[in-house]
Amino acid sequence: MLTAIKGGITAPKGFKAAGVKAGIKKSGKEDLTVIYSPAPCSAAALFTTNSFAAAGVQVSREVAAKGTAQAIVVNSGCANSCTGEQGMEDARGMAHLTASLLGLADDQVFVASTGIIGVNLPMAKVADGIKRAVAGLSADGHEKALQGIMTTDTFPKVSAYEFTLGGVTARVAGIAKGAGMIHPNMATLLSFVTTDAAVSPALLKQALKEAVNVSMNSITVDGDMSTNDTICVLANGQAGNKPIEAAGDPAYGELVAALTAVCTDLAKLIVRDGEGATKFLEITVKGAVSYDEAKAAAMSVARSPLVKTAFFGQDPNWGRILCAVGYSGATVEPAKSKLTLGGIIVAENGMNAAVSDAKALQKVMAEKDIVVEIELGTGDASATVWTCDFSYEYVKINADYST
Amino acid sequence: MLTAIKGGITAPKGFKAAGVKAGIKKSGKEDLTVIYSPAPCSAAALFTTNSFAAAGVQVSREVAAKGTAQAIVVNSGCANSCTGEQGMEDARGMAHLTASLLGLADDQVFVASTGIIGVNLPMAKVADGIKRAVAGLSADGHEKALQGIMTTDTFPKVSAYEFTLGGVTARVAGIAKGAGMIHPNMATLLSFVTTDAAVSPALLKQALKEAVNVSMNSITVDGDMSTNDTICVLANGQAGNKPIEAAGDPAYGELVAALTAVCTDLAKLIVRDGEGATKFLEITVKGAVSYDEAKAAAMSVARSPLVKTAFFGQDPNWGRILCAVGYSGATVEPAKSKLTLGGIIVAENGMNAAVSDAKALQKVMAEKDIVVEIELGTGDASATVWTCDFSYEYVKINADYST
Repeated sequence: MLTAIKGGITAPKGFKAAGVKAGIKKSGKEDLTVIYSPAPCSAAALFTTNSFAAAGVQVSREVAAKGTAQAIVVNSGCANSCTGEQGMEDARGMAHLTASLLGLADDQVFVASTGIIGVNLPMAKVADGIKRAVAGLSADGHEKALQGIMTTDTFPKVSAYEFTLGGVTARVAGIAKGAGMIHPNMATLLSFVTTDAAVSPALLKQALKEAVNVSMNSITVDGDMSTNDTICVLANGQAGNKPIEAAGDPAYGELVAALTAVCTDLAKLIVRDGEGATKFLEITVKGAVSYDEAKAAAMSVARSPLVKTAFFGQDPNWGRILCAVGYSGATVEPAKSKLTLGGIIVAENGMNAAVSDAKALQKVMAEKDIVVEIELGTGDASATVWTCDFSYEYVKINADYST
Repeated sequence: MLTAIKGGITAPKGFKAAGVKAGIKKSGKEDLTVIYSPAPCSAAALFTTNSFAAAGVQVSREVAAKGTAQAIVVNSGCANSCTGEQGMEDARGMAHLTASLLGLADDQVFVASTGIIGVNLPMAKVADGIKRAVAGLSADGHEKALQGIMTTDTFPKVSAYEFTLGGVTARVAGIAKGAGMIHPNMATLLSFVTTDAAVSPALLKQALKEAVNVSMNSITVDGDMSTNDTICVLANGQAGNKPIEAAGDPAYGELVAALTAVCTDLAKLIVRDGEGATKFLEITVKGAVSYDEAKAAAMSVARSPLVKTAFFGQDPNWGRILCAVGYSGATVEPAKSKLTLGGIIVAENGMNAAVSDAKALQKVMAEKDIVVEIELGTGDASATVWTCDFSYEYVKINADYST
């Protein structure tokens, strides 16, 4: 059983956090965050597959390979991406300073950055910020820590649950940022998760993959995969459960369910904050040959600019939806296909379903949240993804965002 | 040598065409076109790979399989797609009526439709239109024929050349329509090509594939692949060249070059007419491992909403361009990469190139036509694609287009 709790990223036992104003962001808001567990942790992470991976991603990949870590240092306002050798030096500098202040080895600190691409970090400001953040670490620092990772986000994204793990009470919490350049293939922009579960590094990584596949890897805002996408999880074992060391352990399933709940909450919040979004679309594809085909069809619909602009226009343009399914590569039998919008059948057997209650359909299209269901008629598998619409505001935000 | 000529789709010897107002389009403009060669033709065609292929596509696939045809019947204003059995009956009806009026077998007539998805054809109007179009066929009908295939196009797309083919003078001409739902995988919406070259059906198909791969399959407007994409070519042999029956025949290369010239002209015109477009972007990727990787990288950039909105905003946001290259799957060595906009190096070795002449770069970004060149640093292959920007107007057109 999962119970939503307060307390953000420091809700799990034994975690501290802080967020400070280092002066990296022009806005002058919090822009540097440190998350820390005094107790050693199993650690796992997933990263962007973009070839131009940011410096922080390259440094954090080395940390993830070790399977243990105790701290995460993050800045917003500058992505430290496409910054060459200097960028690598700066990312290593962030890890080194944080590690030395906390008495850790450098490879026990994840590094992440988000913001503008191609600009070097103002390292004097970053260093000063890290010193103040480490000095200010506390179990109450979760709100400032969350502020410190935000960029174009219009609201903070946080989720935390208490759950039963092998008979004891455990907690899991996550924070995330991201509103544009969202089409993750490993994780979505930046997301940090803490848990007091005791679990081996290998199984923590496996659990993270399972959770991310159906959550952050099932959303799209604009189809662009960032150079900085990162999700890190630290598990410090303070809940006191018998350490999870086999996937067959029922506690492993409990951990996956809790991690999935947190990641799904964060993924949906990211879509709700999609740049310029006026609609939140849940797209479920059923009757597919496999989960992968169902997801491919759902993502094809979720990514289509023609579908997204139609929803912005509150237009039940089912032809565009079937068209996007049709080029997704998923096996579909048009004569057995079906499409519903808010529960109303708008296309059936590959044809117009001649909706009798046009007013009810108008009402569905006018809602902020709309559920789209598509039956492919070729199997039993299904998948759900989330996306938003495509508005004037999206174009405005992205045409005006200065390089 | 290729010489641009006038005369449109009927410029090649022995072709007739007509376009009439059948009353399918609400606008009352020309909406039904017939193209005809009294002499037998080799025929080839390429179609959408969308699973929800329109009825006309399904009928035309059977025609293409035969390798010979003498006529094309096209309507605009209704796509006859997602229309089930009735749609198939209507498409066959179009072919049958055209064939019987021209004294041909049904399988010698290509059928194509474009317009709104999911609505049945008004067959009484279509039949009346076909009768009038066939009665009005002439070598001067090319302009009305071109009007008859247009939908949201803001200008007609036509290209014609005279060229030397095996020592004689031959001609090739093409017309096309399309401004949205453009991300072809076989051909772009509707395109019809005529030539008086003598060529076997098999080599005509091979030549068409070669031409389309570097032209219509190298453009994207919005990333949506239509249910109706079709390109047909008829070759009636009236030029009197020795029939081309082997790819080793130098005349085969002459034909491919001429077809490629026509298809490239049409493809670029389609991009220039991209819905809401304010920019025409030519994106060349060089130094790639293979043509396919170069094209994948170029298409990834061309398709990125973040890149397209940046060009709309006249913002030289090179980070977004490298980011789109980075997730394309193409092999790239960031430290050897280079990006130029209008000949100005904006990123080099995976980093900001610190442009000294900011005014010159502003001038490049303010132009309507912009050339983007990206060096991957991993090989010798290159590819060029064309796209447009993403404007408020794109959103407006597609949010308002009524189902």
